[in-house]
Amino acid sequence: MRCSSFRDRDGRTRVGVVRDGALRDVTDLLPDGPGSPVRRLTASAPDHRALAGAPEVDPATVEVLPAVPDPTKIVAAPVNYRAHQTEMSSASTIDALGVFLKAPSSLAADRGVVRLPYVDRRIDQEGELAAVIGRTARHVPESEALDVVFGYTGLLDMTMRGGEDRSLRKSFDTFTPLGPTVVTPDEVPPIDELELHLRVNGTLRQRADLRDLIWGLPRLIAYVSSVMTLHPGDVVSTGTPEGVGEVHDGDRIDLSITGLDALTVTVSGEGATTCPTLGAGRGPVPPSELTPVAERRS
Amino acid sequence: MRCSSFRDRDGRTRVGVVRDGALRDVTDLLPDGPGSPVRRLTASAPDHRALAGAPEVDPATVEVLPAVPDPTKIVAAPVNYRAHQTEMSSASTIDALGVFLKAPSSLAADRGVVRLPYVDRRIDQEGELAAVIGRTARHVPESEALDVVFGYTGLLDMTMRGGEDRSLRKSFDTFTPLGPTVVTPDEVPPIDELELHLRVNGTLRQRADLRDLIWGLPRLIAYVSSVMTLHPGDVVSTGTPEGVGEVHDGDRIDLSITGLDALTVTVSGEGATTCPTLGAGRGPVPPSELTPVAERRS
Repeated sequence: MRCSSFRDRDGRTRVGVVRDGALRDVTDLLPDGPGSPVRRLTASAPDHRALAGAPEVDPATVEVLPAVPDPTKIVAAPVNYRAHQTEMSSASTIDALGVFLKAPSSLAADRGVVRLPYVDRRIDQEGELAAVIGRTARHVPESEALDVVFGYTGLLDMTMRGGEDRSLRKSFDTFTPLGPTVVTPDEVPPIDELELHLRVNGTLRQRADLRDLIWGLPRLIAYVSSVMTLHPGDVVSTGTPEGVGEVHDGDRIDLSITGLDALTVTVSGEGATTCPTLGAGRGPVPPSELTPVAERRS
Repeated sequence: MRCSSFRDRDGRTRVGVVRDGALRDVTDLLPDGPGSPVRRLTASAPDHRALAGAPEVDPATVEVLPAVPDPTKIVAAPVNYRAHQTEMSSASTIDALGVFLKAPSSLAADRGVVRLPYVDRRIDQEGELAAVIGRTARHVPESEALDVVFGYTGLLDMTMRGGEDRSLRKSFDTFTPLGPTVVTPDEVPPIDELELHLRVNGTLRQRADLRDLIWGLPRLIAYVSSVMTLHPGDVVSTGTPEGVGEVHDGDRIDLSITGLDALTVTVSGEGATTCPTLGAGRGPVPPSELTPVAERRS
């Protein structure tokens, strides 16, 4: 099942199931619950046959929203690939850093715009695989961690470089494009077989095998659930591989992951101002010269 | 107006107004909207006369909840008093660090329990004044920032010391006691006249004048709103003064701020395990010997 959140002609937030190019609005088939329709869907055990009979909607008449527009939290992994540790010259990995938070207000939709807040700060793209949680989960053992996953989606962890707090540098409005769909595990190959490709203006910047994660997804989810209770619709992102790099006004970013629908956004510098905080020049910064992926792999 | 969130006998989340010791359940008088009743209250322009006629509830029959049980985000200030910068030997203040996030799942209620996750890590108390937002706010100028505040409450920013990401070290379940009530600005003296007192087992550890904030509340809210859109019910905490210190199983923490209702929690080490991350011994740590407040002030 591939689920998409959208706003209909009447301004209502809805959730649809996408199949063979058709979008069916399944909102009215869901049980009551808190939050957006997609959160109610993630928390339910949907009857696929009933959902298949939901009314079809013309995709041209709706506004696409982030795949989950209102998670209660977005948790992400700071340094979870060895090659990314090297490019950042980071002394630590996720083993020492744990995880961090991104603000739900930073979500953006597929085909949307990432807005650069400042003219005088470096902003990088970081492409990632994210899991959307389907159950309330606390102290889940690693062996059962994938059971609490409702589905997978692509996530861009846009990041301002510098010495400001990490959760701030990653939480500007529009700094978390998510989607376009959440795909249930039955339609996705095993995580260890997934590949991630991220292109900026058509040039490949990031290529990774998900099997190279330092903490694989079961360990990551088990750990997060030992710190903070996870709720249906919460997003747990796995971290970015090497190849992060600066983006500029007018850039187009494309993220594709095996089995998932591609996520595309454009970057805008409109309205950017000078930065009021003093973290420039501090904190880990990757090299400003991008090494082509082909060379890195050779 | 003093507002309290609670769960009634039927398990429903409600919001009440407390006056002269009486608790009135005003939930059914509020307009529709997303989130808990208190979020609907913060987003509305309540008719005080109508609220005064709401049905009275016996406080002994309800379960007190965090003053706002479901903010879309909790934003806090890292080093926002000079004396706290000194005790932490921190090279930076909020000027360079900006702000950080705490997970909404870390909230705890007045008279509740703060659970220590680990036997082998230091956990400190940090008492703070927090503002609860009452309007959707984006790029609010400093001169209008207090207009988006619905009210004030006490917040304990429980913190694990070490090198893990700051947003993680402050987001364990129960690490954000909040409340017991949100008090509207008309019942609170001007911020610059407020005093904060925090006691552990009756001994005064933190005493501060809110006028000593490095970034006062208007500047803090204006800045946060320039980074991330604020929503009704969101919590913006002002940072902690000097006097943070370690807490242990069985400790009682009392936070009082002029004009607000006092917040009290107990600390429990039950179920604590060894820490799986490797941040111990890294990051800024205040001295383990607590200097009595009277000596610090002399």
